[in-house]
Amino acid sequence: MIEEKGILFILSGPSGVGKGTVRKELFEQKTDLKYSISMTTREKRPGEIDGIDYFYKTNEEFEKLIQEDKLLEYAKFVNNYYGTPKEYVEETLAKGHDVFLEIEVQGAMQVKKNFPEGVFIFLFPPSLEELKNRIVNRGTETEELILNRLKEARNEIEMMDAYDYVVVNDDVEKAVSKIQSIIQSEHCKRERIAAQYKKLLEDEM
Amino acid sequence: MIEEKGILFILSGPSGVGKGTVRKELFEQKTDLKYSISMTTREKRPGEIDGIDYFYKTNEEFEKLIQEDKLLEYAKFVNNYYGTPKEYVEETLAKGHDVFLEIEVQGAMQVKKNFPEGVFIFLFPPSLEELKNRIVNRGTETEELILNRLKEARNEIEMMDAYDYVVVNDDVEKAVSKIQSIIQSEHCKRERIAAQYKKLLEDEM
Repeated sequence: MIEEKGILFILSGPSGVGKGTVRKELFEQKTDLKYSISMTTREKRPGEIDGIDYFYKTNEEFEKLIQEDKLLEYAKFVNNYYGTPKEYVEETLAKGHDVFLEIEVQGAMQVKKNFPEGVFIFLFPPSLEELKNRIVNRGTETEELILNRLKEARNEIEMMDAYDYVVVNDDVEKAVSKIQSIIQSEHCKRERIAAQYKKLLEDEM
Repeated sequence: MIEEKGILFILSGPSGVGKGTVRKELFEQKTDLKYSISMTTREKRPGEIDGIDYFYKTNEEFEKLIQEDKLLEYAKFVNNYYGTPKEYVEETLAKGHDVFLEIEVQGAMQVKKNFPEGVFIFLFPPSLEELKNRIVNRGTETEELILNRLKEARNEIEMMDAYDYVVVNDDVEKAVSKIQSIIQSEHCKRERIAAQYKKLLEDEM
């Protein structure tokens, strides 16, 4: 049997692009992925559940975790912290399970530094117009926040070059199918598995 | 619209591993891939059709094509030539279609030299024992040819390091699904598409 360490997949992209929707659809399908739930200090939106959408923390609690170096990445975005608990990711990968992160671009860049062997997927808006519509229609943001987010989005798109894959979110089903393909094909990458396959055959000779 | 050149996919692996079976199943499914039919001087096996399985050529015809540099790769294997017509591949890629080659390892190494931007997939036997059974059960080879092929197979497996992906052929359906994933995910590779996506957004600004 081939013993493989898990792969860390990071889905990111500009705010409003639909990362959460794509992630939810991905996890509604058959998958062996383990989802790493982020921590945040932002307020719970209607319908969100603590421990499912996020772990909701106070500013004080979050800053204690930062000081104790217990986060794989964290970012402050529109005055709220978002972060990824380190221990869960490392333990799950060691057990051979893939881990899936859905995070903001700032956080993804930190993971890239701390964990360059991760597979970085950039979710791309079908158009800037569409991105604006999505942010506006979410209905939870003030006019100023919307403008801020659009400006951020443009900057974040410039950071696409640090990613391994770009998936356009013109259709959730299509985007999910592409992400599934990326996950499956990454497990077929020669540099991940060739050494173990060769060993298998040598044992037979 | 994103205008993309086609991608050249090369499926290879030791003789007897089941390249032909996997390729046929892949093309029985919905696919936009164009299959590049190889040329060979080997004798037609029962059930094979000229222009579908191979283009069957005489030694004289084949050597003329070599001299005229009309082959992307060719190899002599068990006293027979196998080769890939160059023009068809280049024209099809330029039109934006993916091209799929199923070739022997010797030939794949030549394509790697002439066309390093191709995506190289190594089909891997579930075990050496199984590989031997498959060669024997094919029933078209003498004992000497079988031993030759097994020795070749071991050498060919050492060449795995030149490939991008390794797919184990323990089950045809699974192998085909992995190849489909590789094809889809390669089209999401950031270095192929990022520049064009950025341009799309700049046109909107």
